[in-house]
Amino acid sequence: MIDMIKQWRHVFKLDPDREITDEALDLVCMSGTDAIIVGGSSGITYDNTVDLMSRVRRYELPCVLEVSDLEAVVPGFDGYLIPMVLNATDSKWMIGHHQQAIERFGYLIPWDLLIAEGYIVLNADSTVARLTGADTELTTGAAVAYAQAAERLLNLPIVYMEYSGTFGDMELVGETHRQLDRAHLIYGGGIDNPDKAAQAAQVADTVVVGNIVYSDLDKALQTVQAVKGTI
Amino acid sequence: MIDMIKQWRHVFKLDPDREITDEALDLVCMSGTDAIIVGGSSGITYDNTVDLMSRVRRYELPCVLEVSDLEAVVPGFDGYLIPMVLNATDSKWMIGHHQQAIERFGYLIPWDLLIAEGYIVLNADSTVARLTGADTELTTGAAVAYAQAAERLLNLPIVYMEYSGTFGDMELVGETHRQLDRAHLIYGGGIDNPDKAAQAAQVADTVVVGNIVYSDLDKALQTVQAVKGTI
Repeated sequence: MIDMIKQWRHVFKLDPDREITDEALDLVCMSGTDAIIVGGSSGITYDNTVDLMSRVRRYELPCVLEVSDLEAVVPGFDGYLIPMVLNATDSKWMIGHHQQAIERFGYLIPWDLLIAEGYIVLNADSTVARLTGADTELTTGAAVAYAQAAERLLNLPIVYMEYSGTFGDMELVGETHRQLDRAHLIYGGGIDNPDKAAQAAQVADTVVVGNIVYSDLDKALQTVQAVKGTI
Repeated sequence: MIDMIKQWRHVFKLDPDREITDEALDLVCMSGTDAIIVGGSSGITYDNTVDLMSRVRRYELPCVLEVSDLEAVVPGFDGYLIPMVLNATDSKWMIGHHQQAIERFGYLIPWDLLIAEGYIVLNADSTVARLTGADTELTTGAAVAYAQAAERLLNLPIVYMEYSGTFGDMELVGETHRQLDRAHLIYGGGIDNPDKAAQAAQVADTVVVGNIVYSDLDKALQTVQAVKGTI
């Protein structure tokens, strides 16, 4: 699983709680992006997740679920990303919900399809920041330290820098990337044109493009080549 | 480091904040135990840690520091155990203090000497439980789930079941051990005679003997053979 993810330069994140036409989904899936992540922060249900998965499944693209609600864990994805929010104040977002899920589902868990992500939530105004009570006011040094704790103490294969709703501090992201030895760095947040996509591609291993799919599909599609054209 | 620790069946944990005579320390270090862990929950200073380390260093025994206070991190140990309290409610005991330490010490950190431990705190009356606000009221299923989260999501090499101050539930510990595939299980708490040491040795990979060293040294020394004689 992680070897596959490490190949990804550009991914679209699609939200089961938002409408997308078949035509738009076709353009997204045929855009040259490397994968689809299904996920969102609110309104995620089993039904809308199944629906979106089955529509994406018509394409050959890898499709993974970023798990945010236990009720909406649908079998049939290529993999399951498990966010562990490093800078949440309440540890239930770091480990507590996960422990409860393991206790509840036990033997049913396909461990080899799970990939834990060390999440660093950086936009105070995002749903995920409010939900998790994340301490988003991080200096570059503080963000680097969270990332290194994730990589070196917790051995997490992925560090996910989540600016959902706003375009992030590329210097902070870039410095965090430079200070990691082996963890894969995913960047997400505020990419609404090819220029921002290219900037993010310079500092992150994988660039996630989300909301703009729903508000300006052309711009969203242009981010694919912008990322892929960046070393 | 972890390969060395996996060999350990019996260790003594010595508290820098408590007095031990040279004669008693000699008996402890020559007892046949596999290693000395230096650590405690309160009153740990740089000076008393240096002092205890240098006294233990006269013996060939491996000697590691379990880090509980940043002010008392002394160079010269064979390794550094880093507790991450899985069942703390405030995430600073899981990851926050660690992140702050990394930010503060950065390049000075000898990463290859660090071993992260997934701590499960199980005695509500212990100093560590009060300090970390740990949710100690765990069913066996809940404890197993914490241990599996540590092993399979966080890839922690060690799960440490900490009953400090009381003898634990051997069925709970044993079931947790059975449900782990690769993490090394350390048991500590309430071992004050050879019989309890042997019971713990049946359910854990490594048995930690602490307080009894200070109150009944003969009993403490007898735990070594009790553990080593247990398959």
